Amino acid sequence: MKRRNFTRALLLGSAWELSRSAPGAAPALTIDSARLRRSLEELARFGRNLEGGVSRIAWSQADVEARAWVRESLMSGIGLEVRIDPAGSIYGRRAGREPEQPAILFGSHIDSVPKGGNFDGDVGSMAAIEVMHTLHDKKIATRHPLECVIWSNEEGFAFGRGIFGSRAAIGEFEPGELEATENGVHIRDAVRRIGGDLARIAEARRKPGEIAAYLELHIEQGGVLDRARVPIGVVEGIVGINRYAARITGFGNHAGTTPMPERRDALVAAARLVLAVREETVREPGRQVGTVGKLEVRPGAPNIIPGEVECVIELRDLSLEKVENIFRRIEGRAAEIARATGTTIDITRTSSHKPALATPWVREIIRGQARALGLSTMDLPSGAGHDAQALARLAPMGMIFVPSVEGISHSPKELSRWEDIAGGCEVLMQTILAIDRR
Amino acid sequence: MKRRNFTRALLLGSAWELSRSAPGAAPALTIDSARLRRSLEELARFGRNLEGGVSRIAWSQADVEARAWVRESLMSGIGLEVRIDPAGSIYGRRAGREPEQPAILFGSHIDSVPKGGNFDGDVGSMAAIEVMHTLHDKKIATRHPLECVIWSNEEGFAFGRGIFGSRAAIGEFEPGELEATENGVHIRDAVRRIGGDLARIAEARRKPGEIAAYLELHIEQGGVLDRARVPIGVVEGIVGINRYAARITGFGNHAGTTPMPERRDALVAAARLVLAVREETVREPGRQVGTVGKLEVRPGAPNIIPGEVECVIELRDLSLEKVENIFRRIEGRAAEIARATGTTIDITRTSSHKPALATPWVREIIRGQARALGLSTMDLPSGAGHDAQALARLAPMGMIFVPSVEGISHSPKELSRWEDIAGGCEVLMQTILAIDRR
Repeated sequence: MKRRNFTRALLLGSAWELSRSAPGAAPALTIDSARLRRSLEELARFGRNLEGGVSRIAWSQADVEARAWVRESLMSGIGLEVRIDPAGSIYGRRAGREPEQPAILFGSHIDSVPKGGNFDGDVGSMAAIEVMHTLHDKKIATRHPLECVIWSNEEGFAFGRGIFGSRAAIGEFEPGELEATENGVHIRDAVRRIGGDLARIAEARRKPGEIAAYLELHIEQGGVLDRARVPIGVVEGIVGINRYAARITGFGNHAGTTPMPERRDALVAAARLVLAVREETVREPGRQVGTVGKLEVRPGAPNIIPGEVECVIELRDLSLEKVENIFRRIEGRAAEIARATGTTIDITRTSSHKPALATPWVREIIRGQARALGLSTMDLPSGAGHDAQALARLAPMGMIFVPSVEGISHSPKELSRWEDIAGGCEVLMQTILAIDRR
Repeated sequence: MKRRNFTRALLLGSAWELSRSAPGAAPALTIDSARLRRSLEELARFGRNLEGGVSRIAWSQADVEARAWVRESLMSGIGLEVRIDPAGSIYGRRAGREPEQPAILFGSHIDSVPKGGNFDGDVGSMAAIEVMHTLHDKKIATRHPLECVIWSNEEGFAFGRGIFGSRAAIGEFEPGELEATENGVHIRDAVRRIGGDLARIAEARRKPGEIAAYLELHIEQGGVLDRARVPIGVVEGIVGINRYAARITGFGNHAGTTPMPERRDALVAAARLVLAVREETVREPGRQVGTVGKLEVRPGAPNIIPGEVECVIELRDLSLEKVENIFRRIEGRAAEIARATGTTIDITRTSSHKPALATPWVREIIRGQARALGLSTMDLPSGAGHDAQALARLAPMGMIFVPSVEGISHSPKELSRWEDIAGGCEVLMQTILAIDRR
């Protein structure tokens, strides 16, 4: 199945080819696109799932093995000083001609969602190493030291909190996060599996001024670039994400003997809430999104009226104010629903990630380098969270998107064209070199 | 907690006391109400749950132990010939003066739903044995042989199909039911735990004419008798129950990057379906009920749009025609919802239990005996399924209901007053004796 997906990538042709501005003249690549593809295909072995993608949850055995392979097979012999920081992130550092200069940092993550695909995070991670490999092969020296990084637990499927490694780099944790347990395992023991050490976590923090810029190549995960046939997205910023836990409490009585008017059915109330989340999200124009992705019904028997439902509401936008306005309307609707259904609805915010804007001069360099390569660009927000949102608080930040075929992501059907990936990698390298010359 | 519930039963006072027609004259009980209460309290030890009820799933270790206790501690030494039939049901037979007469059969079940209470099934089971104990103590001989029975797997939480023992008594199984496996365990091995033997299952079948009547005492499990303060319900019949499995298929994309208009959110569609089930059920007058009690969302992550939802729709009424009309309207709504949400909705009927009417002359005897004891009665349907619905196809059938406080059932909060239970048991015994004299 994986093989089929990769073949599908070949057959689909290239948005890049369709969109290049100088017909007949494919940009001369500096990077080795065949090697980059090989890295991605080999990485896809770790945690491969039945549907052809990967289930490579952070800190799982698949993640442990993939990270060992990245360090030992990809990052060795290409002039990198490799280290694992206390959060478990892997750094590969390459010296600069001017050692006092701050480092240019670039990378992504290789952990996935359950039943994820082969491109989310993997593309930017493999491209970062490919840049280092190319510079090594071509003996290109830079003024600044360069660092590539494979962050730890971006998706947050271990212990429920993502962009872990990059938050460690800015020293930002949620209260109690470093003492959490999941299925009886302490987070310190989970992080230790990939070589991290929470006792030294403060040492993961990067100092202000030691990073010249942070860059991340990533698949768009939406369908905007693919529909527009634009090969390079210049990210305006990463949306803020608020999550809320909703608990609807009714009464779990017998489904045969409780007359309809006497019921306090938590699932009927939850159904109204799910629809209210959608309605209040789309009530005003814009690109904001609202989702109920997780919902559990208790006791969950066909012949018992649901007594309790728990669900997670997620709202995203580049404007936190808009997110908060939507949430206030949802709260109002929840109160009405509770009254109408004889239930109680408690909603509490469980996490809030602020929007993070990309740095204008970095965006300008990305745009310029892409165009110099003959690749058209489009400015767009990132609806997904990324490690770049943490780094934006420490250093100038820029993100490069490549198209996702049909906008599919967080799915084994996730797909990006090889040509687009190679183009994105080249833009990443040229952007690094342009920042280095700046 | 259990203790608290029992104490609550004492403090609440008796609907019987409030409703007796001859003020000041509590009916003289023949049965030993203290012994009956003791049996119920002791039975509540098996599978006791944290909330004070029981989780005594059929064929589980708690069921195995409770059934051994029933046979060895309650049914021995009171003149019964005890046997386990091949379905695992326990019979206790008491000879009659006229051995050629068909037996009068009465009983109930002691398996529970998960997080169930202490009264559903238990009351009728303990009362049936109490009747036998009383007849033994008082050396009352009957013309007919009498049989009390504790059926096997009434609730259906093992292997998904209930009223198992009573369906075995009429030789009615679903296709493949006797070859089913659950969590890797074959049904034959599960039934063997309580002493059944599926290789001889045909021997569980009772012959037409060998049963004079089947009687079952049960808690109402609704709030009708409790609200009306009537101590004895004379059951008109048991509603038919149709169950349908609905599968809603959308597309499980990234919740941050997929614009609202592009979504095919299976949970949004399922929410509309849940509301449609309720709306179509209450569209016409009557006592019909419709419930979505089980609903599962996949993949079930806060940041993934639900790609698939599976749920179970259950419809009940004394009229199968009405159930089918409601279902046709739900199907129509489902088609509209699928169109509007870009999803597909497949609904298939997974089970159908026909309504079973109680036998008029048996109802008449129950009513007469209750009134002779000074207990008011009310005719009402049973919204819950019972073993009596299977037996109704083999023999004259009658059911006696006692009130459930606040109509709560299938919950640890399930409660019936001791006085009402004792009254119900007395009506059961007097009805048996009246049928015996008939």
